[in-house]
Amino acid sequence: MGDPYGLRRVVRPKGALPQQAEVLDPQLPLGPDELSIEVERLNIDAASFRQLSQECGGDAQRIAGRVAEIVRARGKMQNPVTGSGGMLIGRVAEVGPEHPAAAALKPGDRIATLVSLTLTPLELREILRIEPRAERLDVRGRAILFASGPWARLPDDLPEAVALAILDVCGAPAWVARLVRSGDRVLVLGAGKSGSLACAQARRNGAHVTALDYRPDAPRMLVHEGIADAAMALDATQPLELYARAAQAGFYDLVVNCASVAGTEMGSILAARDGGEVLFFSMATSFTAAALGAEGVGKDVRLTMGNGYAPGHAELALDLVRSTPALQRLFAARVG
Amino acid sequence: MGDPYGLRRVVRPKGALPQQAEVLDPQLPLGPDELSIEVERLNIDAASFRQLSQECGGDAQRIAGRVAEIVRARGKMQNPVTGSGGMLIGRVAEVGPEHPAAAALKPGDRIATLVSLTLTPLELREILRIEPRAERLDVRGRAILFASGPWARLPDDLPEAVALAILDVCGAPAWVARLVRSGDRVLVLGAGKSGSLACAQARRNGAHVTALDYRPDAPRMLVHEGIADAAMALDATQPLELYARAAQAGFYDLVVNCASVAGTEMGSILAARDGGEVLFFSMATSFTAAALGAEGVGKDVRLTMGNGYAPGHAELALDLVRSTPALQRLFAARVG
Repeated sequence: MGDPYGLRRVVRPKGALPQQAEVLDPQLPLGPDELSIEVERLNIDAASFRQLSQECGGDAQRIAGRVAEIVRARGKMQNPVTGSGGMLIGRVAEVGPEHPAAAALKPGDRIATLVSLTLTPLELREILRIEPRAERLDVRGRAILFASGPWARLPDDLPEAVALAILDVCGAPAWVARLVRSGDRVLVLGAGKSGSLACAQARRNGAHVTALDYRPDAPRMLVHEGIADAAMALDATQPLELYARAAQAGFYDLVVNCASVAGTEMGSILAARDGGEVLFFSMATSFTAAALGAEGVGKDVRLTMGNGYAPGHAELALDLVRSTPALQRLFAARVG
Repeated sequence: MGDPYGLRRVVRPKGALPQQAEVLDPQLPLGPDELSIEVERLNIDAASFRQLSQECGGDAQRIAGRVAEIVRARGKMQNPVTGSGGMLIGRVAEVGPEHPAAAALKPGDRIATLVSLTLTPLELREILRIEPRAERLDVRGRAILFASGPWARLPDDLPEAVALAILDVCGAPAWVARLVRSGDRVLVLGAGKSGSLACAQARRNGAHVTALDYRPDAPRMLVHEGIADAAMALDATQPLELYARAAQAGFYDLVVNCASVAGTEMGSILAARDGGEVLFFSMATSFTAAALGAEGVGKDVRLTMGNGYAPGHAELALDLVRSTPALQRLFAARVG
């Protein structure tokens, strides 16, 4: 009997999933459907790293010590204050015969886990180096990946930092690929990392794509680079402005919300056509603002929450960037 | 040029939508795409009524006075503390020639507005009676319905309280009707008002329906009454229990979350099959818990937020109850 969610590694509280658990056991023998990783690097979530840095007065060595302490106590790198984690890079150490990647991966393959550190059993032997600016630690340790945990092979042909930045937001283009039909009019809110991947994928699906951002340069650049068809400079927290512009330009079949600020639900809903859809990838989305907002204005629109996972999402996003030199430049500039 | 969202009635702050506005003007002459209602009854939202009752020491006359005061000050019945509203019943007074209901409604028709009182311009001439237990006021007044505001004709063949209870949750069966295909296996969390309508509609669409509730009697009764095929008594805030039961019974094509408690996102996600869907109608849904939860376990599932509006939702729900005597008994018992 498999254990795809790693329940047997939960030490306490019993009955919790690994993400909600206080403590995991990273030392059990490898299960037949598990995979172990020789960890090289931890990328700590930004909110978590900021908290650790404040707690340690900005002292890199003390931050490293605190990370070691948390991992020792919890069996995973989940910041007890922020609750958040990050991701890791390493080489495959051992693949259980029943793990779904048993045929695809072999010991020594370099991968990134696409599942949060908050649910990844982890043991650290040594912290070699800490790079506070990159919120990154070079380490030696061992992590466990469950059968349900998504992973991605690290590409040889893209800089590691670029690859990680892409993998971090790869759910957005994957869901855009599923939902956009040829000829659709698509509006993408936010011209950052996930927004620019969403634009590029929507265009690849044959849509007419408008990129929106409050900074005029960002969407204009996407048009200039051939990643979007039209640019809109607008504060999406002002729903009436967005509504007026959409009424003028024509309402959209699909609005993809990749904005990084709160309060953009109503604008997204009003910009969609009747019978259209809104795909929310912004983590600042409020469920009630979206659901009650659409009801309040009697808008027939399907509201989808952006699930960060979809089968094949990592390869899809990496291929999208590989085949779009403009996206490579854009991501290189952002992580540089 | 129409004004489907009633922007011209916003007094302050300028640029806000009526729902977000502090003050509306209910006294402007009727716009060509507006409809006016001679109001008979206000049904105050439960959270709002509780707050008013506390503020007024439970004194019915003082509550009535406070409602009058709020409506006078704001031009709408939006509780300034809770931010919530309610709905109203009345007779059509005048229909602007460009209102979408111009052909369907005539003065004297009795309707309920399906748009929140939080965005409905309202003027009260008199409060005739207050029924604290029903959170209801009989009034004389005038309200405005914008072109975008959904409404429903009050049926002659159902008790008013039953009709209102149905209209309050009519979005759920409408979206179930859209998303369920014949032969689907559907799990409905919560066997209350919206949950039982969701079950009945899913069955009508040809699905095999399992009703889940933490109270064993409620889902069992739905099976007994022929509204669901199977019953499950379970605390949906315990994701692993729900996962284990779904693994046993077979995972679901669609999970409809009508639970009234927080913390049921993970259970809903784990109960769905890979490639399945979850439709969240619970107002206690957390966007991040759902989106990050699905990502964390690498679950390929489409997460839809329940929009309370869909075209024809009121008639669909009323017809569903009309043609299902068991639902009539169930709703009568709930509002009795």
